[in-house]
Amino acid sequence: MNDAPPTGPATPADSVEPQSRRRIRADRARQVAEVLRRQIASGAFASGLLPDERTLIADFAVSRNTVREALAVLRDEGVVERRQGVGTVIVRRPYEHTLEQLTGLAETLGTHGEVINRVRVAHVVRPPGEVARKLHVPDGGHVVYIERLRLLDGVPLSLDLTYLAADIGEPLLAADLAGRDLFGLIEQSTGGPLGSASVTVHAVGGDPHTCALLDIPAGSALFTVERLTRMPDGRPVDLEFLRIRGDRLAFRAELVRAAPESESGSESESEYDEAARRTGGER
Amino acid sequence: MNDAPPTGPATPADSVEPQSRRRIRADRARQVAEVLRRQIASGAFASGLLPDERTLIADFAVSRNTVREALAVLRDEGVVERRQGVGTVIVRRPYEHTLEQLTGLAETLGTHGEVINRVRVAHVVRPPGEVARKLHVPDGGHVVYIERLRLLDGVPLSLDLTYLAADIGEPLLAADLAGRDLFGLIEQSTGGPLGSASVTVHAVGGDPHTCALLDIPAGSALFTVERLTRMPDGRPVDLEFLRIRGDRLAFRAELVRAAPESESGSESESEYDEAARRTGGER
Repeated sequence: MNDAPPTGPATPADSVEPQSRRRIRADRARQVAEVLRRQIASGAFASGLLPDERTLIADFAVSRNTVREALAVLRDEGVVERRQGVGTVIVRRPYEHTLEQLTGLAETLGTHGEVINRVRVAHVVRPPGEVARKLHVPDGGHVVYIERLRLLDGVPLSLDLTYLAADIGEPLLAADLAGRDLFGLIEQSTGGPLGSASVTVHAVGGDPHTCALLDIPAGSALFTVERLTRMPDGRPVDLEFLRIRGDRLAFRAELVRAAPESESGSESESEYDEAARRTGGER
Repeated sequence: MNDAPPTGPATPADSVEPQSRRRIRADRARQVAEVLRRQIASGAFASGLLPDERTLIADFAVSRNTVREALAVLRDEGVVERRQGVGTVIVRRPYEHTLEQLTGLAETLGTHGEVINRVRVAHVVRPPGEVARKLHVPDGGHVVYIERLRLLDGVPLSLDLTYLAADIGEPLLAADLAGRDLFGLIEQSTGGPLGSASVTVHAVGGDPHTCALLDIPAGSALFTVERLTRMPDGRPVDLEFLRIRGDRLAFRAELVRAAPESESGSESESEYDEAARRTGGER
């Protein structure tokens, strides 16, 4: 009943106009949802149930209505579900994938379930100009194009579009594309480890076609990832465009503080320039 | 007119049933959109215009209908706009923010425009249990809560919720929160650089309240970022929950290939355990 506890987590409600109350409750609900979402993702509630309302009210020092609004936010995102006589059940928690080291999906997530790839396309094609440039393919050259829908425990996780340099990709056309990560297959085929990769991650509302393939409503939030992977000598060989369900994966990284100056202006340089520069030597 | 060029980028359309044509065109349109989206994001089209249809048809070796469908995908995402007599205009391109080093928004993006923060809340509060645990705040202790809407060149970019250890946060309540990154303010206040941070990035469809604040339609794709920043001695002092417009920012990282074995099982450990463990010593 009291929407303005003196020790609440956020907004000094006791000093504001009554008409701002709704806004303040929405702010608080968002703050509560934010913390709960991360607790869920990091596996904090081993029982698969959220704490009951009374506990949440006490823990966050907010009103019952604010807690309900926070749970509604998580319900709308498909993270939790209210079940009569049970409570608030965690429906899904995203798996965490590192952004520190270069790893394939099955390498990282294989311990959580079975990764299966539905191979939609795997053949030799003439690449679009931009793809040819990034993979340093000469005019008239070809690449191998592989498209796979990736499932973890039978539920779609991502749709992966991959362009491979011909000499790297052609031996893979006969390999176990349904069962294995491309990184592992490439390394087995070339006899050594891959080098480094440049990764860019966007968040977009998915187009209807992609969302249908991924078995989620059109417009659902996706990560779209571009990953350009290089051999140890710097040669770019693997250009991927991944569309990953936002409700099934989170990225994780450990960052170290560096001098602010070193950052500025890095973005004015195009990725292609960078890739070309790196081709000369290892990092 | 010809939807199945022999050297096209994707699907061997010449060998499939007529009823699969629509699906194949949608696949190809998605592939084209994927490449164009990344070209736009990396600043490939300096004129602010996409190449004309004829050029795109030749470059991607697809039909006119496929190119139009690809452009429709980008239009629906708000990336481009069709203007009569002009062509396909790039409406917005996301800024790239590194996920390699720990930097504040203004440090990274300040060269691209003016970052302004609208301070919505800045005061001392009793933290929710989870926040207290992550910041190692003793029972009954307090933290400083700061909520800021961040704008780049006058357009909302992110909504940042920050919980700071009291001794770190209190001196900042009188500082220039509207004009500066928290990292810079903390370092000025403590007299030395911050240490490291653990970052987790999710993609979600934004709730109506957050989207209204960020000036985008409800349900638009957002990055939600949790970032726990530590002092050089490992003490966690700054826990942030950032909600970033997906259409305005992309994350970027350089990864190095490491032995696959070193990855497995890292996710079974909770972030709290990790933070607690790290508190003992520097990385």
